[in-house]
Amino acid sequence: MPISSPIVILDSGLGGLTVAKALRRALPREDLLYFGDTARVPYGSKTAATVTRFVREIISYFEPSDPKHVVIACNTATALALPAITEAFAHRSITGVIEPGAAAALEAVKGKASATIGIIATDATVRSEVYVRTIQARRADVHLLARSTPLLVPIIEEGRTAEDPLVRLALEQYLSPMVGAGMDALVLGCTHYPILKEMIAEMIAPAAVIDSADYCAQDVARRLGSRNLLRDEGEGSLRCFVTDDPLRFTCLASRVVGTELEPARWVSLDELHEKPQSNDAAMVLAGDGAGVALRGMPDR
Amino acid sequence: MPISSPIVILDSGLGGLTVAKALRRALPREDLLYFGDTARVPYGSKTAATVTRFVREIISYFEPSDPKHVVIACNTATALALPAITEAFAHRSITGVIEPGAAAALEAVKGKASATIGIIATDATVRSEVYVRTIQARRADVHLLARSTPLLVPIIEEGRTAEDPLVRLALEQYLSPMVGAGMDALVLGCTHYPILKEMIAEMIAPAAVIDSADYCAQDVARRLGSRNLLRDEGEGSLRCFVTDDPLRFTCLASRVVGTELEPARWVSLDELHEKPQSNDAAMVLAGDGAGVALRGMPDR
Repeated sequence: MPISSPIVILDSGLGGLTVAKALRRALPREDLLYFGDTARVPYGSKTAATVTRFVREIISYFEPSDPKHVVIACNTATALALPAITEAFAHRSITGVIEPGAAAALEAVKGKASATIGIIATDATVRSEVYVRTIQARRADVHLLARSTPLLVPIIEEGRTAEDPLVRLALEQYLSPMVGAGMDALVLGCTHYPILKEMIAEMIAPAAVIDSADYCAQDVARRLGSRNLLRDEGEGSLRCFVTDDPLRFTCLASRVVGTELEPARWVSLDELHEKPQSNDAAMVLAGDGAGVALRGMPDR
Repeated sequence: MPISSPIVILDSGLGGLTVAKALRRALPREDLLYFGDTARVPYGSKTAATVTRFVREIISYFEPSDPKHVVIACNTATALALPAITEAFAHRSITGVIEPGAAAALEAVKGKASATIGIIATDATVRSEVYVRTIQARRADVHLLARSTPLLVPIIEEGRTAEDPLVRLALEQYLSPMVGAGMDALVLGCTHYPILKEMIAEMIAPAAVIDSADYCAQDVARRLGSRNLLRDEGEGSLRCFVTDDPLRFTCLASRVVGTELEPARWVSLDELHEKPQSNDAAMVLAGDGAGVALRGMPDR
């Protein structure tokens, strides 16, 4: 594995750019390849089988680049696909955003006797219970409140800001019951949500807001450092790849990252489409009718 | 073309079921095949090239069934893909939901001297300006107000009802300026919206609400009648096909249609995936970089 290999960051759309931005800050010498699956966004309402398939196609697409690390910068994809993906690509170093977010939340309530941690995320992430399991495996006495907040991504993608009364009403509806339950820290369990971070922080104060992007970047830096794979010279880059309109993406992405990016490369779904594999969840679904499909589908 | 051939209805997800329901009412003897592309929903934020590709894959999938008519029961797909699709499948009878909706809106303001028609729809449908062009081609003196209302689909899909203050606030924000401008009729330019029809009607009264599902069904009945392809005996059926979780879909679909449906069939994206074609918009996009992509992408 050459030290010059790139780091791949993937997401369903724009949200993972908050992780790309944190990685650029933490590792300014590294080349970053960002993939936004904008033709199939969002992942948050889809099943584990479907999301796993999409993530596998994206990682396969980057195999020729021999990446030194892959970050699944999407909470839904981490929750639904990470175990199957790390097994399918056992030769790759692959991490998600949930472990770093869970660790940061536990750090925030350290020393507090009966702490309560809240998590807001997409429907699929909440149903997977991965945050709950990850946090309770490290500290069993923490009380957890998980809530799906499906309107926040479309609200952010519509460009609504904190001044909009609808944004305040939506956040109040979602967060008030959690604040009322005495929450000490709130994990933003979707990479889009940091865009509303200040307003959320104000609403839940004095509870802490946990934005996992920074922790995720530190985690990647530590992993690469321990494998002696950190570049010690040169200037890194960020190149974007998308499955739908590259112009619109480049525009929005430059705004999120805070610098002018080179035009994103459009990747057709034909280039991305993989050959069916014999031993995956998708194949279990290939039978005719819902009875067969049940076996490969997540519990509902 | 045998009289026993089915009618295909396609949509990105659940919304087109409002059209399927109207077709069942209008044509109770016909066999309906409904396709919901739930692994790639929504279409409303995607480009013409991507949506056209998806629709072409779905229609190709049903070619072996030799359908006597295909309804694109999705405003976005009608707006972005109908011309390319009718050209690609010149041997098929294919219609969308925009023409019937536009005709119904003009019927509602007939005889009124300086009428104003409003349209609410997804971002992609509004940007395409297809409603505006379709209505003004028939009557040039009508004033048109088109507004994209991207939160309404996620609000409906979250299961929020008219009692929720956020639903009222969102509708007020979207509709008040249109009411203030003296609108006479409002086209629900997305097949999801009829689910909020009563509340919208109350807010914009005395302006008329135009739900194109019924007009679309009447249009299909008339076309089949004129080709002598209407069945005159037997009992019709409705079978559903989806690209993601069939169980969840069957449940929600039964609620929308109002009768218990047989389990939806899961169609893998592998079955659906078509061979690249040489003369389509997608191929124009296959070049490297945004400069090439521009030519195949809609204006932004």
